[in-house]
Amino acid sequence: MNLIGKYESLVEKVNSLLCVGLDSDFEKLPERFKKIENPQFEFNKYIIDLTHEFVATYKPNAAFYEARGDAGMCELKMTMQYLHEKHPDIFTIFDAKRADIRNTNQGYVTSIFDWLGFDAVTLHPYLGREALDPFLARKDKVSIVLCRTSNSGSGELQDLQSDGKPLWRIVAEKVTNEWNTNGNCMLVVGAAYPEEMKTIRSVTGDMTFLVPGIGVQGGDVKSVVQNGRNSKWKGLIISASRSVIFADSPHEEAKKLRDEMRSHP
Amino acid sequence: MNLIGKYESLVEKVNSLLCVGLDSDFEKLPERFKKIENPQFEFNKYIIDLTHEFVATYKPNAAFYEARGDAGMCELKMTMQYLHEKHPDIFTIFDAKRADIRNTNQGYVTSIFDWLGFDAVTLHPYLGREALDPFLARKDKVSIVLCRTSNSGSGELQDLQSDGKPLWRIVAEKVTNEWNTNGNCMLVVGAAYPEEMKTIRSVTGDMTFLVPGIGVQGGDVKSVVQNGRNSKWKGLIISASRSVIFADSPHEEAKKLRDEMRSHP
Repeated sequence: MNLIGKYESLVEKVNSLLCVGLDSDFEKLPERFKKIENPQFEFNKYIIDLTHEFVATYKPNAAFYEARGDAGMCELKMTMQYLHEKHPDIFTIFDAKRADIRNTNQGYVTSIFDWLGFDAVTLHPYLGREALDPFLARKDKVSIVLCRTSNSGSGELQDLQSDGKPLWRIVAEKVTNEWNTNGNCMLVVGAAYPEEMKTIRSVTGDMTFLVPGIGVQGGDVKSVVQNGRNSKWKGLIISASRSVIFADSPHEEAKKLRDEMRSHP
Repeated sequence: MNLIGKYESLVEKVNSLLCVGLDSDFEKLPERFKKIENPQFEFNKYIIDLTHEFVATYKPNAAFYEARGDAGMCELKMTMQYLHEKHPDIFTIFDAKRADIRNTNQGYVTSIFDWLGFDAVTLHPYLGREALDPFLARKDKVSIVLCRTSNSGSGELQDLQSDGKPLWRIVAEKVTNEWNTNGNCMLVVGAAYPEEMKTIRSVTGDMTFLVPGIGVQGGDVKSVVQNGRNSKWKGLIISASRSVIFADSPHEEAKKLRDEMRSHP
């Protein structure tokens, strides 16, 4: 069973599509964490302890750790060690949005899959399949390609029409038909664009989507589940970040989102 | 004078368009560096000492440091401190190829411009201008947007035609006319595509190009200078990495490339 199968088993076990984004921006941490050693790690541990029973995936975003330099990288590594020890079944995504030329990508593969030990990474498609080969060749790991991103200005390039199709649709078709030869690809499809999500589902079969944009960014859980689920009522990793981790009760907020995802079969 | 002006003054002073890519892959370092403390920093110091008189820009690529986790990040920081101390005039680019949603990009801005202290960073265009705003808003720094990359498969998306124009041309026009409101943008244009470079020069005025693909990737210095230079015989940052830093004599190799760039006015 590859990692995607492992993820699907976990979705069944915890009955949840919820991904919690560990966007643990130091500036936004509760004051009590700012004063202690390893603040980002201690905060992540607190969030993981409070939410793991409702969670299928954790997704730290690289930027919030890199902002603190090597200290942030250490605490990200500690977070991954904690997850591997306590919750080895939970799927982990490094939301790093990387992509360089082929030779260089090998460095990112080593860093993300081997040093940090993530299951998956998010990737820009702009350099094409040939450049991404070091990621795609890792059959034991998952490559999640940006297709239709959740930001308000995502259409500027992604909506450009070529041969009667928008760029996001071309990316979806290419990943499905040409890049996914090892069966280890997923796509990023923002929650804010339900119509596009429906179209992307129609061209990708049962491929799993990572769906950001729930919560602070305003995406709607019901429409994501209805437009994005695959034939097995799976195929979705629905991510909320700030709305969960900075909530008064991250436990209640994670439970609420999990229940909302379950109530729209 | 903004940073681009500062770069142009330096080009005049050292009479060189050469950028040395500090792609200091630990696995490829000479054996004597692998055995000492801070191997990547000590190697970079050795390369900088041997090449700086011919160099207008240094460009470390993030992947080769991240591959060594927090240790690599520390040695990258030490490299930047060394450059700031010894050669504060030399332009520095972090070849990190980042881009996330707006709120998240702020973390990268802090990391790259403030913590590491780079002058410039390379960026993916796929999320559009709105997402890149935290980078573009930094008038004191430079944003270098991927336009036509040097890898052999770059055409897969970048050659897609929309409204009669390839995607790389649309990116060049957008950056020139809409993204560069603070006059702090440059473009990545690979050396392997001289015809495209000529077209991109024709639509961007005097905008500076970062040109990878010389050396190991096979690009030709003469055609880059002839097709890429702007009206002031400037506007180019021509980058060589492995062919210089892993040469028997990095000093001779850097001098040879500098001289070659000068011989094609």
